Amino acid sequence: MSTTAERDPLPRQDRGTRPDRSPKQDRSRATRQRLLEAAVACLAEHGWAGSTVTVVAERAGVSRGAAQHHFPTREDLFTAAVEYVSEERSLALRALFPDGAADRRAVVSAVVDLYTGPLFRAALHLWVAASNEDQLRPRVTELEARVGRETHRIAVDLLGADESRPGVRETVQGFLDMARGLGLANLLTDDAGRRRRVVAQWAALLEEALG
Amino acid sequence: MSTTAERDPLPRQDRGTRPDRSPKQDRSRATRQRLLEAAVACLAEHGWAGSTVTVVAERAGVSRGAAQHHFPTREDLFTAAVEYVSEERSLALRALFPDGAADRRAVVSAVVDLYTGPLFRAALHLWVAASNEDQLRPRVTELEARVGRETHRIAVDLLGADESRPGVRETVQGFLDMARGLGLANLLTDDAGRRRRVVAQWAALLEEALG
Repeated sequence: MSTTAERDPLPRQDRGTRPDRSPKQDRSRATRQRLLEAAVACLAEHGWAGSTVTVVAERAGVSRGAAQHHFPTREDLFTAAVEYVSEERSLALRALFPDGAADRRAVVSAVVDLYTGPLFRAALHLWVAASNEDQLRPRVTELEARVGRETHRIAVDLLGADESRPGVRETVQGFLDMARGLGLANLLTDDAGRRRRVVAQWAALLEEALG
Repeated sequence: MSTTAERDPLPRQDRGTRPDRSPKQDRSRATRQRLLEAAVACLAEHGWAGSTVTVVAERAGVSRGAAQHHFPTREDLFTAAVEYVSEERSLALRALFPDGAADRRAVVSAVVDLYTGPLFRAALHLWVAASNEDQLRPRVTELEARVGRETHRIAVDLLGADESRPGVRETVQGFLDMARGLGLANLLTDDAGRRRRVVAQWAALLEEALG
């Protein structure tokens, strides 16, 4: 991933606004993005065992050589993919509440939504594969810690939680653990009905606990 | 699994108390149990891709033929294994609190412990594999629903939760989702310190919510 970072040094918010980008850079960026999105979809559908650089390149309509130019190893491709889509979803979550702290029921519901759907499924496959694969484990551990910290920060902001008060940090953490557990419960069956009721009740509990 | 049930029709509580069991039946039962325990350990360590009947038979010190006599297919073996160990853990949880409803902090902590360790890891591998494998999905879905209902019943009893009060059912469900999320967070790193703090805080919140 450090290789990728060197090739793509712009912070996200600058992308698309720089007037001096060449068409070649644009094409390269578009290729990279197609690969990342195909990688997440592939992980979600086929799991780690069925996800290779070749399969993803085909799905993205990119040559294997071009894919390897962007992502030298399978681990590079899939960790970058989960990271990319996590960042996209974090940005989308913030964008839902442009004024920051908002109605807690709406925030709880939107945060839980992060953990249902293809991204969570893809991340879960990567996570579980990493628990048995030495090559993958340190990278996924580091990635999960980073994504987890960012999600915690967003949840604290949007819930208007005052972490200087005792217990508030753990209250928010437990809520995020619950959100991940709800994602897990949605893996094999459509759990939307039950989830809606749990979210309503826990939003009320959080409202009381956070004051 | 229906095959297994036909061969082993005794409810668990009768096992070991029937005076008329032959030594041959005892040996067969012991073999079956060794296979189930080896299967869970194998899933936890190597994941679904690395878990075959042959590997498990070797680990259990049982011939492949004997293993297939007990479990005709790979799916039979691994779903039976996760079910067996889940039942063992449910019994152990009830045994921790022989008088039923108990100190809520102790109960919350003991329930969360169900979701850390090798059984949860094994179940998670099976769960995630089932999300991509048509042969496995219906069986694991049914198994998870059954184990989930039983865990919910135990949690309600031990927490002394009155489900006739509005919101109590969803409070307990959300707590169990949180416990599964905490299990997930423990997959790649030892999360015991953070988990202890989250458990302490949410035990206090549940105490208030359940009254």
